[in-house]
Amino acid sequence: MKKLINKAEDVVREELQGVAAAHPDLVRVQFDPHVVIRADAPVQGKVGLISGGGSGHEPMHGGFVGMGMLDAACPGEVFTSPTPDQMFEATKAVNGGAGVVHIVKNYTGDVMNFEMAADLARAEGVEVESVLVDDDVAVQDSLYTAGRRGVGTTVLMEKIAGAAAEEKRPLADVAAVARKVNDFGRTMGMALTSCTVPAAGKPTFDLPEDEMEIGIGIHGEPGRERMKVKPVAEIVEMMSVAVVEDIPFASGDKVLAFVNGMGGTPLIELYVVYNEVNKFLQARGIEIVRNLIGNYITSLEMQGMSITLLKMDDDLLKLWDAPVKTAGMRWGV
Amino acid sequence: MKKLINKAEDVVREELQGVAAAHPDLVRVQFDPHVVIRADAPVQGKVGLISGGGSGHEPMHGGFVGMGMLDAACPGEVFTSPTPDQMFEATKAVNGGAGVVHIVKNYTGDVMNFEMAADLARAEGVEVESVLVDDDVAVQDSLYTAGRRGVGTTVLMEKIAGAAAEEKRPLADVAAVARKVNDFGRTMGMALTSCTVPAAGKPTFDLPEDEMEIGIGIHGEPGRERMKVKPVAEIVEMMSVAVVEDIPFASGDKVLAFVNGMGGTPLIELYVVYNEVNKFLQARGIEIVRNLIGNYITSLEMQGMSITLLKMDDDLLKLWDAPVKTAGMRWGV
Repeated sequence: MKKLINKAEDVVREELQGVAAAHPDLVRVQFDPHVVIRADAPVQGKVGLISGGGSGHEPMHGGFVGMGMLDAACPGEVFTSPTPDQMFEATKAVNGGAGVVHIVKNYTGDVMNFEMAADLARAEGVEVESVLVDDDVAVQDSLYTAGRRGVGTTVLMEKIAGAAAEEKRPLADVAAVARKVNDFGRTMGMALTSCTVPAAGKPTFDLPEDEMEIGIGIHGEPGRERMKVKPVAEIVEMMSVAVVEDIPFASGDKVLAFVNGMGGTPLIELYVVYNEVNKFLQARGIEIVRNLIGNYITSLEMQGMSITLLKMDDDLLKLWDAPVKTAGMRWGV
Repeated sequence: MKKLINKAEDVVREELQGVAAAHPDLVRVQFDPHVVIRADAPVQGKVGLISGGGSGHEPMHGGFVGMGMLDAACPGEVFTSPTPDQMFEATKAVNGGAGVVHIVKNYTGDVMNFEMAADLARAEGVEVESVLVDDDVAVQDSLYTAGRRGVGTTVLMEKIAGAAAEEKRPLADVAAVARKVNDFGRTMGMALTSCTVPAAGKPTFDLPEDEMEIGIGIHGEPGRERMKVKPVAEIVEMMSVAVVEDIPFASGDKVLAFVNGMGGTPLIELYVVYNEVNKFLQARGIEIVRNLIGNYITSLEMQGMSITLLKMDDDLLKLWDAPVKTAGMRWGV
């Protein structure tokens, strides 16, 4: 294992110390339990938006804390759910009197722990709405999941629901917007290489030098199929068909197309992928009205990518375009 | 070789097609010869700012074309200098009557070709100033270089000189600001792994499973020393000492600290690196007044990082903070 770390057990703490040192204008970091909190939280009268999950997916979620996106993020150890304690602390820290939305990716540990945290918060009089993300079309159940996994759509949900909260929409409305994003968003991922969790010290899975895995999860969970590496046009075709036919997306639809790198894929390849996605959708009469290309929900140093499509309407477009100021996504301010 | 590409010889063209499809609001892409041009170029009365170099370092340079940064970028084949033809086309396309600055990284091919392009442009009456970037403290001469290599400081120069041009400062002043950035900026890089140029099909160099290379160049050129991988605190100490003692940076100095990923390094590790850089500089009384953390000048999928320090004064701070709107760097707008 070659990594830019000190001790494996200190990676998350030291990363968060780096975040705290780098971005005091955006966030404050609380340790033991670890929570990344928007610098000016709680914002009075605004719905608080929190998410969390295992570390190793940066910039998600800690890099998305700030104006127009999350109010707090709960980072677990690498690929390990955060504790109810972290989520409860985050919920209290961001409650400005208008309630709190929990964005929960559909992994068994995350779901269970966020439920416990929501119960604890409600017992103290904080209104909490939970919104599940389960957008991964690759597999029905998975290694850490009953039902579909929550993947790329999470990033889009955090941006869009964050903008709705910034407009001071009430709790039920912010939760409804977030649920609409989940209803309208679909994702599929693939990997060329594995990744190594620091505490494990060896690759999560083995992938032969000429093979790829289609439908991979963000922790390296098995996907749909292993096969020989193909030209990217064929890879994008396979994945896009699975995504498009799931809702289904139809001719005339307007979409946000999100090409996400898994952490170790160079940007030059992500633009080659985007070029293929664009051609695929044009041929089906589906119009890309917004795009996002880069490493946003990653799996450590894994090489690979995911394709997310989100069906857009006027409200979602307006919320997507609204200003955002975080370490991982910024525009308009 | 596992890559998300079709044919190796089509990578750059297809990447640029992806850029053109993704960012028509920011840039237009001209093919044969390839040039990425700011959508509203030429801007009348504004100095035009162009750069270029081999592809494979994305988002540099094409991702930095837009308001407040570059007016055009000339992408060569992967790790191959662009042609004088590309640079001449770019120079003409961005000339708004106030002259053009060429930002040239110090590699033999880039220097020679930019000189030819400048001569061609001057023969057509366009005023051109060339600014060399040679900020890499690792080695004096290198595989493709007489003198020091141009690396991380290039990104900061493009931002800062871009802001000066946006203010409509005259040609000599924009060039002077760019030269100040080169005088005040120093960088050193390291690699944990090699990278594979698509057309070559095999890794540029071999690095044993337990070794790293300190002082690596952005094309995998040899650095100062190969050694066993060490804890990141020791790696950062070695590199930071080399950077700090070069100008030298002294107690009381204000700096921009830029921790750059080589393309395959996960963000979680870059923040662990930043934490160490921050501690190192604090102990020496050097104050970080701005920072930049992420993958900005990359070497395909290489795992590794570079540390750049830029001594800041009031004018550089103001220009750094000015609005920028590009695919790879954006704030204030």
